[in-house]
Amino acid sequence: MTTQPRHLKFFSAAGTCALATHITLEEAGADYELVRLDFSRAEQTQPVYLAVNPKGRVPALLTPQGVLTETPALLAYVAQTHAAATLLPPADDAFALARVHSFNSYLCATVHVAHAHRRRGARWADDPMAHASMQRKVAANMSACFQLIEDDLLAGPWVMGEHYTVCDAYLYTLSGWLAGDGVDIGRFPKAQAHAARMAGRPAVQRAEAAWR
Amino acid sequence: MTTQPRHLKFFSAAGTCALATHITLEEAGADYELVRLDFSRAEQTQPVYLAVNPKGRVPALLTPQGVLTETPALLAYVAQTHAAATLLPPADDAFALARVHSFNSYLCATVHVAHAHRRRGARWADDPMAHASMQRKVAANMSACFQLIEDDLLAGPWVMGEHYTVCDAYLYTLSGWLAGDGVDIGRFPKAQAHAARMAGRPAVQRAEAAWR
Repeated sequence: MTTQPRHLKFFSAAGTCALATHITLEEAGADYELVRLDFSRAEQTQPVYLAVNPKGRVPALLTPQGVLTETPALLAYVAQTHAAATLLPPADDAFALARVHSFNSYLCATVHVAHAHRRRGARWADDPMAHASMQRKVAANMSACFQLIEDDLLAGPWVMGEHYTVCDAYLYTLSGWLAGDGVDIGRFPKAQAHAARMAGRPAVQRAEAAWR
Repeated sequence: MTTQPRHLKFFSAAGTCALATHITLEEAGADYELVRLDFSRAEQTQPVYLAVNPKGRVPALLTPQGVLTETPALLAYVAQTHAAATLLPPADDAFALARVHSFNSYLCATVHVAHAHRRRGARWADDPMAHASMQRKVAANMSACFQLIEDDLLAGPWVMGEHYTVCDAYLYTLSGWLAGDGVDIGRFPKAQAHAARMAGRPAVQRAEAAWR
């Protein structure tokens, strides 16, 4: 079994996908320090933070062996180093683990990206008219993503079925973006019930309370 | 150790990110059947394929336990089920494994997405002027991604350092898109040397030969 790291430094910001890792640190009972970045002051682009994460994004996790970035990697690391919390399928079940990686990859590469075209269009085009055009498609794209999640990916009651995994914290985080993207989560009864189930977990409540 | 699956069915198409998994199946010495989809005939959107992968994308891998999608998941699955090929760090090294997941997440969520804005702009906007605006930014975005890879992520000689991993097949696949995106790989000497090193591997040559 992998040794549990004694102290982690977790870099996060309000309203970002870093909430998924935050919840997972709480679920794991991890020994961590929360470092808050203020995006309204662009602290993620300051040299002091770029020395931690040259991508200028959150989340980042400073571990005893170095810095890790990218949500799927942080989720896997926290779960594996806190095995007693059983936040992943058994280590020898390659198929079940791959299903976790598949779900998390879909969220980071498709769902998060679909959402980001609402306010981060400048990443992919310089023309304000292009940004406006992107914004007009966000609700439809997020709806299509959540229809796929509803129909094919969310087994219920948890994403992977009977057992809670890191996927649940990640899905909950992105479900929370739907309203702002102009999508009524009520159209997706399983995702809506999942979000309500998540909101009742003490770890989720602790992670969210840290930002109030 | 996880049992090696006796027979896999691998769904791929020319010129796609599925090449990374194809190379990895070859590196692993996997027992697999290649199923070729013709994107010029939109075969990925036909009902017969959507029954395999409702996302309508490649790659997909039919395993004895069911279908897996998303490149990072397929890479992890093939590596774990063919452990003798040592395509991942040791299973108990959570930090090293997380670095692999982090690299693969960056490629799928940032680099592949940056590239996709050249010809897949219709995913994120309906206006042809927006597509043209996106296209104008692709070379700069791919350059920024590869500058980060060059400066911070590619340890050399392989992505993770002395040991070849699944990350190498994935990086090689995306490096191959630079020229079409209007970026000279010669600006990134480490990535260029990495691509040349990869091109010399028999597994890479076999995967590429399957499409000639």
